[in-house]
Amino acid sequence: MPLSSHQVQVAAYPSGGVGAECFEVVEVEVGPPGPGEVLVRNTWTSVDPGLRLRLRAEAPSGYFPAFDLHAPMDGILTIGEVVESRTDEFAAGDTVWHPFGWREYAVVDAAAEYMNGAATLRRLDVSDAPPQWYLGPLGAIGLTAYSGLAVVDALGGGETVWVSAAAGAVGSLVAQICVQLGHDVVASAGSPEKVAWLLEEAGVAAAFNYRTEPPLEALRRLAPDGLDVYFDAVGGDHLEAALASMRTHGRIALCGSISDYESDPIGPANLFLATAKHLTLRGFRGSFHTHLLEEAQSRIGRWLREGSIHYEETAYDGLGSAPQAMALVRI
Amino acid sequence: MPLSSHQVQVAAYPSGGVGAECFEVVEVEVGPPGPGEVLVRNTWTSVDPGLRLRLRAEAPSGYFPAFDLHAPMDGILTIGEVVESRTDEFAAGDTVWHPFGWREYAVVDAAAEYMNGAATLRRLDVSDAPPQWYLGPLGAIGLTAYSGLAVVDALGGGETVWVSAAAGAVGSLVAQICVQLGHDVVASAGSPEKVAWLLEEAGVAAAFNYRTEPPLEALRRLAPDGLDVYFDAVGGDHLEAALASMRTHGRIALCGSISDYESDPIGPANLFLATAKHLTLRGFRGSFHTHLLEEAQSRIGRWLREGSIHYEETAYDGLGSAPQAMALVRI
Repeated sequence: MPLSSHQVQVAAYPSGGVGAECFEVVEVEVGPPGPGEVLVRNTWTSVDPGLRLRLRAEAPSGYFPAFDLHAPMDGILTIGEVVESRTDEFAAGDTVWHPFGWREYAVVDAAAEYMNGAATLRRLDVSDAPPQWYLGPLGAIGLTAYSGLAVVDALGGGETVWVSAAAGAVGSLVAQICVQLGHDVVASAGSPEKVAWLLEEAGVAAAFNYRTEPPLEALRRLAPDGLDVYFDAVGGDHLEAALASMRTHGRIALCGSISDYESDPIGPANLFLATAKHLTLRGFRGSFHTHLLEEAQSRIGRWLREGSIHYEETAYDGLGSAPQAMALVRI
Repeated sequence: MPLSSHQVQVAAYPSGGVGAECFEVVEVEVGPPGPGEVLVRNTWTSVDPGLRLRLRAEAPSGYFPAFDLHAPMDGILTIGEVVESRTDEFAAGDTVWHPFGWREYAVVDAAAEYMNGAATLRRLDVSDAPPQWYLGPLGAIGLTAYSGLAVVDALGGGETVWVSAAAGAVGSLVAQICVQLGHDVVASAGSPEKVAWLLEEAGVAAAFNYRTEPPLEALRRLAPDGLDVYFDAVGGDHLEAALASMRTHGRIALCGSISDYESDPIGPANLFLATAKHLTLRGFRGSFHTHLLEEAQSRIGRWLREGSIHYEETAYDGLGSAPQAMALVRI
C-alpha cells in the first residue's frame, strides 16, 4: 500500500542567491517496493552548496544535469533505515546510504548502479560512528577532502599548504587532515570567529580573514617562501593569489569555485604563471575517487575517534527546514 | 686582444606590439677569453616570441627576470663556432650551443651551469643534422613540443588532440608529432594558407581558421565527441573553448598564452569545468624537462630525416635584421 511522504521540490530557479522561496514541500505517495526494491525511511540528508550549480534551467556544460522544476532534487546523499525489503541483500532495520534525499521515504532499486559504478544503495556500519558522519567526514565530504589531497599528491606531508574556505565542511576537514599529515598549513576564512577556530581548534600554523586582508598580502606575510599546494574551493581572487604565490612545481586542487556559483565567473588573469612556474591544476570531484573511500573512512574515522580532528555539524530538524538550511549554507 | 662585435640591445620597452624601435644595434668590444672560457662566433640565433614577456620593466612574478634596457637579452639559444678555446673541453672549430645570442661574438665560461643544472655551453653533433635544427626541432622548440605532450601523458597516441597555433614553431611540431603518434589531431591557425598547410603537409585529420570560425563552434563540428588533450599556446577564447570541449579526465598542456603577451590577460571564465570534468591543466616549460632532450632529439630527428615531419625555417640574414624578425614573429 502506498505511503504518504513529504518531499522538497524545486519551485523556481534562483535569480540571485538561493532562498527558501526556491523550494516547496509537497506531499506525494510512495511505494510499496517492487521485487528487488527496498523502502527506506530517511533519517539524515545533506545540504550541499554545490547543488546551486544545478539550480538553473541549464547546468554548466559537462556538469551534472540541471534539476527539473516541480520535482525533488536527486543525487543528495541521504541516510535512512530500511522499513521494508524485497531483496535478500537488505533487511528491515539496516542503516543505508542512497542518493534520494530531501524526502521522507524513498523506494530504491537495491541492484542499481549509481555514478562511476558505485552502488546506489549501500549498507553502513554504524557500530562505531554516528550515522550522520557518513554524510560528512566519512561520506562525500570526507572523500572530497581526501581525494583532493590525493590528486595533487599531497598526502605525504611536509609541505606548505593553503586551504581556502577552511572553516567550511570540506575545508575544515582538509585543513585538519593536512595538520595530521604534518603539513605547514595556512588557512583562510571569512570571519574572526572562524579564524580563531582554525588556530585554536583545527591547529593550523597560520590563518587569515580574507574579508579584512587580501589573500595575496596575507600569503606574502604568512607563507613568504611560497606555497607547494593550494586547495581551492573559492576561485576568483583566491585562485589568483595562489597562482602568484605558488612555488615552482606547485599543485592546485580545484574543488569548486563558490565565488562563481552566484555571479558571473571571473577566470584567473594570471593563469599564464602556471607555464612559468610549471604548476599543475587538477579539477576533481570526490565521486571520481570512490576507490579511495575506504582508505579515507578508515584514516578520518580514526582521527575523529581519537579527537585529533574535530567535526562540527549544523543539524536542522525536520524536512520542512531543508530549504532554509540550503539558503544559509556556506562552504 | 679584444674583438669588435655588434650586439642587439633593448632600447625601449614596447607599449603595445613589439617593434624594431625597441632595439638598437650597438658595437662593443669582446674578449679575449680568460682561462676556462671560449670565444664563440655566433652563426645562428633564435627569435622567440616568449621573450616578449620579459620586454618590460618588471617581468611577471615567478617568471624569468625582465631584460635590462641598454643591454643585450640573454637566454636566447644560439649556435656558434668556437674561435678560440682556453679549456681542454672545447677546441676551435667545434659547433656549440649557448644562451648568449643576438650578438656576433660571445665569451662563454665552459664550466658554468645554466638553468636547472644544464650546461651553459654544449657541443653539438652536426654530422647528420644542419646546425640550425638545434634552434628548432632538435632544440628548445622540439623539447617544448615533446615535453608538453609528456607532461599531459599524451605520448601514447590514440586520442583526440587539439593543437592551437598549429602553424607556429612549436605548434607545427606538436601537431606533426601527434600525427606520428597516431592521435586524431584537430589543428587551428589564423589563415586559410596555414589551414591548408596543416591539412596537406602536416597531415592532421582536421583543421580550422580561428579568425573565421570561433574555436568552440569549430570543435563542436570537428571533434563532436570531445577532446582528450589540448595543447594550449594561446589562452583566452581558445582555452575557454577547450575547457568546454574536454571530455572527462581530459588534460591540457599550458605552453604559454600568446593572446596575453601584448594585452591584458583574461582568465578562462569556465575554469570551474575543470572540477566538474576532472580535468588536469599542466603548465610547463621545456627547460624543466632537459632530461627528455635526448629522447626528443632522437625521435624528432628520425622523423625529420625520413620526411615524416616537416620543419619550415624562417631565416633572416645578419644581426641587423633581428629586431625586424622579432617584430614579425608569430607563434
